[in-house]
Amino acid sequence: MNNEYNCWLQERKSQAAIALLPLLNTIFAEEGALPGGGEVAVQAVEEFRRGIKRLLGFSPSVHFSQSAQAGGCGVFLGTVSRLEKIFSLSGQKQAAGGFTIRFRDKQLVIAGQDEPGLLYGVFRFLALLAMDLVHDGLEISDAPVSPLRMINHWDNLDGTIERGYAGPSLFYRNGRFDYDRQRIEDYARLLASVGINRISINNVNVRDEAKLLITEEYLGDVAALAAVFRRFGIKLFLSINFGAPWSLGKLPSADPLAPDVAAWWKERAALIYKYIPDLAGFLVKADSEGEPGPFLYNRTHADGANMLAQAVGPHGGEIIWRCFVYNCQQDWRDHSFDRARAAYDHFMPLDGAFNDNVILQIKFGPYDFQVREPVTPLFGSFSKTRHVMELQITQEYTGHQIDLCYLPWFWEDLMCFDTAQGPASRISELVGPYSGGHSFIEGFAAVVNVGLDRNWTGHTLAQANLYGYGRIAWNPNLTATEIAREWSVLSFGTGPAAERIAAILLKSYPAYEKYNAPFGVCFMVTPGLHYGPNIEGYEYSRWGTYHRADAKAIGIDRTPSGTGYTSQYSAKNAAMFADPASCPENLILFFHRLRYDYKMKNGETLLQNIYDTHFEGYEEAAAMLEQWKSLKDSLEEEVYQAVLSRFERQLANAREWRDQINTYFFRKTGIADKRGRKIYD
Amino acid sequence: MNNEYNCWLQERKSQAAIALLPLLNTIFAEEGALPGGGEVAVQAVEEFRRGIKRLLGFSPSVHFSQSAQAGGCGVFLGTVSRLEKIFSLSGQKQAAGGFTIRFRDKQLVIAGQDEPGLLYGVFRFLALLAMDLVHDGLEISDAPVSPLRMINHWDNLDGTIERGYAGPSLFYRNGRFDYDRQRIEDYARLLASVGINRISINNVNVRDEAKLLITEEYLGDVAALAAVFRRFGIKLFLSINFGAPWSLGKLPSADPLAPDVAAWWKERAALIYKYIPDLAGFLVKADSEGEPGPFLYNRTHADGANMLAQAVGPHGGEIIWRCFVYNCQQDWRDHSFDRARAAYDHFMPLDGAFNDNVILQIKFGPYDFQVREPVTPLFGSFSKTRHVMELQITQEYTGHQIDLCYLPWFWEDLMCFDTAQGPASRISELVGPYSGGHSFIEGFAAVVNVGLDRNWTGHTLAQANLYGYGRIAWNPNLTATEIAREWSVLSFGTGPAAERIAAILLKSYPAYEKYNAPFGVCFMVTPGLHYGPNIEGYEYSRWGTYHRADAKAIGIDRTPSGTGYTSQYSAKNAAMFADPASCPENLILFFHRLRYDYKMKNGETLLQNIYDTHFEGYEEAAAMLEQWKSLKDSLEEEVYQAVLSRFERQLANAREWRDQINTYFFRKTGIADKRGRKIYD
Repeated sequence: MNNEYNCWLQERKSQAAIALLPLLNTIFAEEGALPGGGEVAVQAVEEFRRGIKRLLGFSPSVHFSQSAQAGGCGVFLGTVSRLEKIFSLSGQKQAAGGFTIRFRDKQLVIAGQDEPGLLYGVFRFLALLAMDLVHDGLEISDAPVSPLRMINHWDNLDGTIERGYAGPSLFYRNGRFDYDRQRIEDYARLLASVGINRISINNVNVRDEAKLLITEEYLGDVAALAAVFRRFGIKLFLSINFGAPWSLGKLPSADPLAPDVAAWWKERAALIYKYIPDLAGFLVKADSEGEPGPFLYNRTHADGANMLAQAVGPHGGEIIWRCFVYNCQQDWRDHSFDRARAAYDHFMPLDGAFNDNVILQIKFGPYDFQVREPVTPLFGSFSKTRHVMELQITQEYTGHQIDLCYLPWFWEDLMCFDTAQGPASRISELVGPYSGGHSFIEGFAAVVNVGLDRNWTGHTLAQANLYGYGRIAWNPNLTATEIAREWSVLSFGTGPAAERIAAILLKSYPAYEKYNAPFGVCFMVTPGLHYGPNIEGYEYSRWGTYHRADAKAIGIDRTPSGTGYTSQYSAKNAAMFADPASCPENLILFFHRLRYDYKMKNGETLLQNIYDTHFEGYEEAAAMLEQWKSLKDSLEEEVYQAVLSRFERQLANAREWRDQINTYFFRKTGIADKRGRKIYD
Repeated sequence: MNNEYNCWLQERKSQAAIALLPLLNTIFAEEGALPGGGEVAVQAVEEFRRGIKRLLGFSPSVHFSQSAQAGGCGVFLGTVSRLEKIFSLSGQKQAAGGFTIRFRDKQLVIAGQDEPGLLYGVFRFLALLAMDLVHDGLEISDAPVSPLRMINHWDNLDGTIERGYAGPSLFYRNGRFDYDRQRIEDYARLLASVGINRISINNVNVRDEAKLLITEEYLGDVAALAAVFRRFGIKLFLSINFGAPWSLGKLPSADPLAPDVAAWWKERAALIYKYIPDLAGFLVKADSEGEPGPFLYNRTHADGANMLAQAVGPHGGEIIWRCFVYNCQQDWRDHSFDRARAAYDHFMPLDGAFNDNVILQIKFGPYDFQVREPVTPLFGSFSKTRHVMELQITQEYTGHQIDLCYLPWFWEDLMCFDTAQGPASRISELVGPYSGGHSFIEGFAAVVNVGLDRNWTGHTLAQANLYGYGRIAWNPNLTATEIAREWSVLSFGTGPAAERIAAILLKSYPAYEKYNAPFGVCFMVTPGLHYGPNIEGYEYSRWGTYHRADAKAIGIDRTPSGTGYTSQYSAKNAAMFADPASCPENLILFFHRLRYDYKMKNGETLLQNIYDTHFEGYEEAAAMLEQWKSLKDSLEEEVYQAVLSRFERQLANAREWRDQINTYFFRKTGIADKRGRKIYD
């Protein structure tokens, strides 16, 4: 049974938990004994109690004790520094957030490297319990690979969410903070249970009242929200408007090198940190899609970021600076300019020019969260600047949480991409704490997919994307399959339904990709809305995302004979992408302009492959619907029906994609499908 | 000099008026002596005084007198029935609204057939005066050819205007009536000065608060507005929601044959007419684009209209029923259905089924106010049902009052269309009072182009479209050239600038048509917005407006071998349209699917003609801009600059149209421009 609201923290009788029963009379727990507070440890213990109640149906009492004995039977919750005095725990020091779980000899020990580690250990143990994976002799140590695991909210203060598909904002309404405190706590719990430790709470496009979040009119409210997340080990970022000294401070400019501007931000930071002393810092979108930035004053992005970094630095704050900067006033007639080049062209020359407390947030690909685009060449190249990878959990281009599109399937692909710069150069291998002089990706940020819908994510199965994001941000070596299974069992129980739901998840991304724009060509989507096909929708627009299909060929030549984008990659990758024979076929139209009669690896033409994938994509969407129907008797009626109606809408969407794409190319070429399937004229 | 606010009623010293001076000491005027009130006559006399003040600079006094003498020197304003006792006026009785102007022997006589006739006579005399066309011996009689000359407002109660391009509503704001009474009076004056006698004051899509206009909450406000227009001979229509008995009256349905529904409307009409005893009636958009209608209850449109007609009939009211009914949920894959057929297919079988006080409002073409579409086959065919032709003054598809597009140029074309049904079968010949048994078009309705912009119409030169509509509605035999000259002189004086502005107006429509969708193919426009090109914007949509361009051909075959639309016309026209050789070339892609290598009459291919017209259209837009610049020293700086900036925006729009259309077809065909002009790839 599934209560959509609870996501992967379902109430359920766990078989494995029976073994635990004898221990639960005695819970020794450490309270607030660490430097810096202890409220996360308290929350960890509370989460243990709540979790046991979810999985066993009763609430164990907890003893706070300084005198747990090594030989005693019971549950021991604490930090390594305390518990290692009692138990011989494996000696190696873990990364922040790490934990050890050991269950043997009638003792359950959960020891965190630090307080958040204890919290994550508790959640991991509860997950294992829910999956019936706890057994005598269990011993697990784990720690997050990436230090920074961030959620971005694109929530506006009027309650709308930019690219939100699951109801209005959790935080705001009518220009004010306006929320259900219990729901925010439940949200923080969900995030912490998968290891999230940072959250930005307002849209990077900082407009209207959101500009005032850094004023005393709102700072008290920000602090109140910070307090809820703090207990769960999650620190807040605020998105700020780079033009604030001018618009808010009434200064003559917002020039980052003007002393009055720097002074204004210092003073402003001091005020903000008075309210929220552990604020993580500011998130900034500058000089992009209409937002103000240092270019306005002929300054570099390093000038802009560093000035802000100096304002928050004394308070321990950091600046996260987005690299999504490009010319959004392009002329489609101009073939010389290539938007895909923008992030590298703008930021690579600045590598090393940023302060130590600046972190660049780099979108995974050169465009904008497309269904299929290559990994941006900045990763592997950046070596003297801290940075994180930006993903997108909200399904802007991937079906608006109407269509099922299990994103970890694609993220796994990204993690496996080999930048071919130095040893251990896969993305997953690059993730880790920054140590200077090497291209470490410190973590991940992602626009979240939640709203006030009761099930948080509109499509109940889209919960898997939020879960999966947390898991991959924790450990980019996890596979999409592992994550799908974990999530399905946690959400739908250990019965056979979970395995079948996991299988549906794993088919969903390739199906979506097949009925979408073919072979990495991107942006054949309804302008503005970004749902459903519009094959020439961006073809004559200002956004720089063209495919230039004519009667013979399609795609942009991004090799050295074209825009030269491939040369931004390492020599090996540049060569791979530049040659159609070695370029991955799922990206071949991103990198090449090809004739429709180009022979693909399967021996069929490009055109026939377009037809084939689109017929297949629709068929796969139809199959998912049928597979869902076969689950009717295994599921809560409400969940079954709600998801069913989404699959039906998805099928209609897949049909439009299939037919419009196929008709478009049929009209262009006059060449029929080789297998005689119906293409409308 | 031009004060934009005053439109064609400028203040200006008139040379011709000098001759009038001796007469102005004695003005005999009839006051309120007609049955039915007299306030229009009073207003006519007031307009004479105001007009003299505009054109001579002083306000003559007016004597109301019963005893004007035949021999006396002076001005005589009155109705024929009074004045013919004094003067021998030409005996023939005129249509309602007619007038005679006679100026000789130191007597100026303006005699209206009725009070509105007097008002129109006064305005005509003032126009002649402003154009310096008054001379001793002048004698003019004129009367409107069409009894019904209507303005439609698509104003919403929130102050927005559907398809409005000149600022917010004149009437509403924030869900209430909220207007400047003086401005409404000035608006009524402008309308009356060109002969408008009906106005509908709210959007035909009746939503939100507009549904309550027929309740006592708003009826007092409606009555107050009616009072302003009444003095100018203009009667109000209200747009109503067909579903009101259900939504407002809480009845189980709005079924037109349900007795409780009919009773509800009767009662409602009685209430409305208590507030506005001379309300002209209701305007209804039913079963169209989401509006409710009789189809909901499996009733015919005659059932729906007649039921309402019976409700307003006892009060002298009429129902205007729009024929814009079509399937707006089409599937682009289905070639069998043709939206162009809809009006005829729906309404022709109902000819004769409507009550005497029902008037069908038929859009001029089968689509929706496109830049070029044929005249709908309903005209000339309908013979037993009252009807009017609907035009569009607001420039929805014709450039949003950013681009100059002088609509009377096109309307003249429509008026010249020969329906080839019976003798005297041109549209202009069909216009006249309905007499039963013959296809008379009783008049015109048109969505207006005004808003709260100081110059009323956004683009100052778009005032010519409002003026021109009034003139053509009055007399469909007037030419676009005559009207352009009249308007230009009235608006910009008798100097050389007026002639040059008239010339620009007359070039504007063909220029716009050339850079738009080619040869009547329609709907290559940005969806929703309807400004600027989007060649495949409607190609896969639900609206039924496809061109189905492929690599070889474009257009819809609407001949008997295709959708059969041509067969809705008279035999002669059906034959003309069905044969590409005789089909007018500006409509050839509306009626035919043609290969790009089809040879047009000028010996060039269709494709080359597409290229040529688009290069020409841009050049003509550029020429208009230059012509406007040459007028700099002849014009008010403010008017000059405002219009200049519109011409600059128009040129940018023309460039997008030219290049996107040409590139689109170049990409489809791979065939370059024969003359080597630049087409982007």
